Amino acid sequence: MSAHTDQPAGVTVLGLGPMGRALAAAFLDAGLRTTVWNRTPGRDTDLVARGAVPASSAEEAVAAAPLTVVCVVNYDASDAVLRRDTVTAALKGRTVVNLSADTPARARDTAEWADRHGIRYLDGAIMTPTPTIGTDDAVFLHSGPEELYREHRPVLAALGGTHTHLGEDTGRAAAYDIALLDIFWTAMAGYVHALTVARAEGVTGAELAPFAQGIAAILPPLFTEFAADTDAGTYSGELNPITSAASTMAHVVHASEAHGIDASLMRVIEGQARRVIARGHGADGYTRVADVITGR
Amino acid sequence: MSAHTDQPAGVTVLGLGPMGRALAAAFLDAGLRTTVWNRTPGRDTDLVARGAVPASSAEEAVAAAPLTVVCVVNYDASDAVLRRDTVTAALKGRTVVNLSADTPARARDTAEWADRHGIRYLDGAIMTPTPTIGTDDAVFLHSGPEELYREHRPVLAALGGTHTHLGEDTGRAAAYDIALLDIFWTAMAGYVHALTVARAEGVTGAELAPFAQGIAAILPPLFTEFAADTDAGTYSGELNPITSAASTMAHVVHASEAHGIDASLMRVIEGQARRVIARGHGADGYTRVADVITGR
Repeated sequence: MSAHTDQPAGVTVLGLGPMGRALAAAFLDAGLRTTVWNRTPGRDTDLVARGAVPASSAEEAVAAAPLTVVCVVNYDASDAVLRRDTVTAALKGRTVVNLSADTPARARDTAEWADRHGIRYLDGAIMTPTPTIGTDDAVFLHSGPEELYREHRPVLAALGGTHTHLGEDTGRAAAYDIALLDIFWTAMAGYVHALTVARAEGVTGAELAPFAQGIAAILPPLFTEFAADTDAGTYSGELNPITSAASTMAHVVHASEAHGIDASLMRVIEGQARRVIARGHGADGYTRVADVITGR
Repeated sequence: MSAHTDQPAGVTVLGLGPMGRALAAAFLDAGLRTTVWNRTPGRDTDLVARGAVPASSAEEAVAAAPLTVVCVVNYDASDAVLRRDTVTAALKGRTVVNLSADTPARARDTAEWADRHGIRYLDGAIMTPTPTIGTDDAVFLHSGPEELYREHRPVLAALGGTHTHLGEDTGRAAAYDIALLDIFWTAMAGYVHALTVARAEGVTGAELAPFAQGIAAILPPLFTEFAADTDAGTYSGELNPITSAASTMAHVVHASEAHGIDASLMRVIEGQARRVIARGHGADGYTRVADVITGR
């Protein structure tokens, strides 16, 4: 604590799961006074050995720094900590950056709660896995008051990687997070399914992986193309009509089920494509399924 | 035709959809005598203008070259052409490379049919979009007799890109193809869904795409890790237990359905994860879903 500031310097981290511990470690590595707390005790041992200050309660933790970073499993969990009267009172005039994942609606609701209690609030999302924290590969998204973001940007920079402020709407980081998790888990689900089908055909994961990486490599330009397609509401199927797509989807279903492998994921995907075709849009591109899933 | 060979040189392409036309164009660009045929007439106009030889029937087409490349929508379609008596007879002693997509079982069945009729047969799969054909970016997989593959490799090289012979089992190219299509279409389905959720939250495709590309960039190392995990039957969830994964999947479902967007795809994915947790494997990594989908 400096005589020149009216608040103690440093940062507090609430939530010491694998990601919370990585965040605290990055703050410590940057030389910041880092106070840590976790609902279940015993998670701070390594961090304390590295210089973190253990807090015996969440209210003590948030009082120890002008900025509290929260990283718990979801907003039910962050509400359970932040919305206790003693913690809410201790946060008054301080800043919370909530890096827990949840829906945009929950983020906006928390911003309103914070506003009612004189708490300064930013919402954020961590887009990369735990080992990236503190490295150039980390990707953080933030939303909420830009001035507040700028004020805390130097401390957040200790987490490494790229930080992007997406706008004043507090729900915006969560909106991106949800969309990107949607892409991530769907891709992972397809990949694990593909590994099981390949294995049933005598192809190992080690054999398939390099070709799977080839598929990952063709996604970025297609992502740009599909984004432009949906933004413009054009669904050109000139090079790959959805009828061809549905045909290859059916092959995946048949090959899977011939081995007794659950193909319900691809059945959903093929079913959506078939609905596009049934509506008379078989010559359109795959992106036309946007209509089906949004009920247009 | 040369006096020194007993068969006319060059190559025949059966099937002139967008991909078949791209294949024929690449053969023409390489200076090969290219004979073309399509069930529905009128698709060969541009190719003939570039020097392709139009055939008036499939049997005339296959008789025009020692190698016939077939690229139609699936094996029902290729059977409908190849298994007509006149075509089968004309193919005797010649080679078919079937680049149509279907299941490994269909590919093996076609190899047996070819063997019974004295037709030399290779199965193949094209892993990249139409515009890549003739460029370094094209990726072709082949399976069947290696000697036969080596014999026709110089002609196939005219298609550009990378050609890999995966083994003597004729079904192997289709097995890779199915697995890679599984990855591709699942990823695309997740992406189009993400675009619709983002749009409902006021985020455009153009805004989301760069971050989506960031997700694509983290897939390759995860693909290697997940492949090793499933090959070894280890399902380490140390850094990302499936309980956390399921929690973020639920956020995607809730955020989607709050906007009236169909979340059935993520519901399947979350449901599989929940089944892993219900079986007591919540601390394991996501790859443990392989057990659930294979009914282990």
